[in-house]
Amino acid sequence: MEKRSRVAPWAPSRAQLRLAELESEVAGLGLAGVTRLVDAVLAEHRGRLDEDGVVLYAGTNTMSERARAAYEVSLGSRPSTGWPGEKPQTGLDEVDVLEVLAPLQVAAVMGGTFAEVRLQSATLATLACYGAFTDPGDTVAILPESACGHAGHHARGAAGIRGLRVVDLPYDAGRFDVDHTALPAFLREHRPALVMVGASLMLFPYDVARIRAACDEVGALLLYDASQVAGLIAGGRFQHPLDEGAHVLTMSTYASFGGPPGAAVVTRDEDLARRVSAAACPGLTANYDASRLAPLAVTAAEHAAQGPAYADRCVANAAALAAALHREGFAVTATHRGWTASHHVAVDAAAFGGGDEAARSLAEGGLYLGGIALPGQPPGEPARGLRMGTQEVTRRGLGPDAMEEVAVLMRRLLVDGHPPIKILQEAMALRRAVS
Amino acid sequence: MEKRSRVAPWAPSRAQLRLAELESEVAGLGLAGVTRLVDAVLAEHRGRLDEDGVVLYAGTNTMSERARAAYEVSLGSRPSTGWPGEKPQTGLDEVDVLEVLAPLQVAAVMGGTFAEVRLQSATLATLACYGAFTDPGDTVAILPESACGHAGHHARGAAGIRGLRVVDLPYDAGRFDVDHTALPAFLREHRPALVMVGASLMLFPYDVARIRAACDEVGALLLYDASQVAGLIAGGRFQHPLDEGAHVLTMSTYASFGGPPGAAVVTRDEDLARRVSAAACPGLTANYDASRLAPLAVTAAEHAAQGPAYADRCVANAAALAAALHREGFAVTATHRGWTASHHVAVDAAAFGGGDEAARSLAEGGLYLGGIALPGQPPGEPARGLRMGTQEVTRRGLGPDAMEEVAVLMRRLLVDGHPPIKILQEAMALRRAVS
Repeated sequence: MEKRSRVAPWAPSRAQLRLAELESEVAGLGLAGVTRLVDAVLAEHRGRLDEDGVVLYAGTNTMSERARAAYEVSLGSRPSTGWPGEKPQTGLDEVDVLEVLAPLQVAAVMGGTFAEVRLQSATLATLACYGAFTDPGDTVAILPESACGHAGHHARGAAGIRGLRVVDLPYDAGRFDVDHTALPAFLREHRPALVMVGASLMLFPYDVARIRAACDEVGALLLYDASQVAGLIAGGRFQHPLDEGAHVLTMSTYASFGGPPGAAVVTRDEDLARRVSAAACPGLTANYDASRLAPLAVTAAEHAAQGPAYADRCVANAAALAAALHREGFAVTATHRGWTASHHVAVDAAAFGGGDEAARSLAEGGLYLGGIALPGQPPGEPARGLRMGTQEVTRRGLGPDAMEEVAVLMRRLLVDGHPPIKILQEAMALRRAVS
Repeated sequence: MEKRSRVAPWAPSRAQLRLAELESEVAGLGLAGVTRLVDAVLAEHRGRLDEDGVVLYAGTNTMSERARAAYEVSLGSRPSTGWPGEKPQTGLDEVDVLEVLAPLQVAAVMGGTFAEVRLQSATLATLACYGAFTDPGDTVAILPESACGHAGHHARGAAGIRGLRVVDLPYDAGRFDVDHTALPAFLREHRPALVMVGASLMLFPYDVARIRAACDEVGALLLYDASQVAGLIAGGRFQHPLDEGAHVLTMSTYASFGGPPGAAVVTRDEDLARRVSAAACPGLTANYDASRLAPLAVTAAEHAAQGPAYADRCVANAAALAAALHREGFAVTATHRGWTASHHVAVDAAAFGGGDEAARSLAEGGLYLGGIALPGQPPGEPARGLRMGTQEVTRRGLGPDAMEEVAVLMRRLLVDGHPPIKILQEAMALRRAVS
């Protein structure tokens, strides 16, 4: 077997091994072979994750039936550019309606006035804000990766594309918040144009009002990346960043929000909204995939109608999962604070070879989640933690009792060493009991 | 009626009028109302463009049945990040396969070695190249808007996000190519890091080899934006930019290529590919919508199998349409060069109030296309031209005879002033004869 990947010979060695293995599987396929392989792969994917899997990965979800029904693939290959009323292409009268409906619905449910919904990922939402509010060479202050800050915000991500200087916000890992004592002097020293909070693991709210007060002293704008918690914010069951002082909120439209892939940027400030709009289009996109808009509008309307109940169930499931994992002997993060106030739960998995290794074992047992570097973990070490989110199992209909069973399955697999195939059968039964 | 838009009160006045009108239509809708509206709008869209419309807009297409069948929406809300073999999320084994299959298929059919396929639009493909090959403050030389250069390349687009200085390539509007005589001195004066060709209207090939020779003199990289013509290149029926010397090719995966929305960046150079890969992920995207990959792989495989026949039909339809429009008395662009060597046709529509006005009239008659500023037209003037592409009507099964009927319908509507409703009925009959 070829050990050097053709697709990405520059990838790290573990990735190259996997890539090269897959490349030999797909080598030389013609149209019939490609079609057959794609059919098989999609069927396996649906079976694994949609039908059989207990999916606790925090960055995923399943759309509601109503939202799925609003997906019209044909819209996607008729990309839209320009404002309704002055598009260069004709025949998009119906897209015009969606281009008004989706931002109004998203803005309303997120407590904002304006929503930019044309961007296809949260990293691009961040980059639109960087483009709108900074010049190359400016400084942005963001949560370090040791605070679960998202790589997309950093120099390897959007900040590098915009040519920004990145400084790490002072962080209090014990409190899961910015170090408020150190913040004012830090901001006076670095004078960032932009301060951004929000991270890949969000167990507890940030003290947004206090961060905003420090930002005001140096004239910095405050962004809140709600990619993980947008669904809880929509349901009114987490902090409300715009009420508490964030100038702008960015978010994924999938994950806890549970809509189609993509992103939104929400604000109450017309001038900031105008600048984001120009950075989004034509800055980052001319034509864009308009097929997202209808399921996005439907998802937002669902949150307006049923969001609190969904958010309550997500939070209750996380509390039950955390308590059960604690009872089963796992080192659940933030025991002193009651483990979680969101849909997230984290566990220190150092005893099981670290988070990535533990996640791979759990996947063999039909429990799908992921590793994460825990807050306060020294940078560069392999991820110690396992991260879980309850948004998808909640949508599937699993409740607190099922969360207790999940914790037991995790203990049996990781601690007691039961065979993964046994755990897989029980996880499938748990999942299928509600399908 | 409110004349000021809530969604975008900063939009130009014609757009605000349309936005405000739509906003009053969708105001106060709850979940049931949103769902009903979305259903109705999607059904109208399908009826208008997919079932009844003669769609000649150059930036659109319809996917093949095979590619549509490969769209699995569930993949989209399970965004993928990281290389196969080292993803933080588990359970994406099937996405791993698609992440190898799609780039190999696209690279092969575009005559490259490496293809970056994770970007969601051609503007982002351009920005990935800007991120990979330039630093903020560098100069890029691109086709001016008066050469149908794409706004996404310019300072209001991706170049502004990257903080680049933009200079307009010297252009010979009569030859639809870069002004090769002026180019060497121009490049010596401006020393761009990057030269990019490719535009929204591409009737004829550029002399890529000659441009490359001039780039080599100053050490500039040469990019070819094949967004419009990727389907013809895949079929071997237009110039081959990588054979002729372009370092890198960017493209839309829809339009003439006819796949899902999104973009690709193709090259033969491993070092350039590695830099584009890092700019794409994690530079511009962490998680991305993986549902595009399967239909993209299938579309590329279809081009490998049937591309030349499809490209031939597109080109033959364009030739027939141009000749018929000429016979019907329209001022078809580039008469001295035989009108077109691609799937594009352009007409000077100044006599009908300009391109946008003429396109609006034609839409009432069921003929969907768009306005464009013609090459050589002074900047700032309203678009004089109508732009047409035959890619979608070709896929629908319309042939040269139908193109002649289209030209007659356009003459009757725009020149003879026949009622649009009559033309609409005939256009629908023409379209439905092949559905």
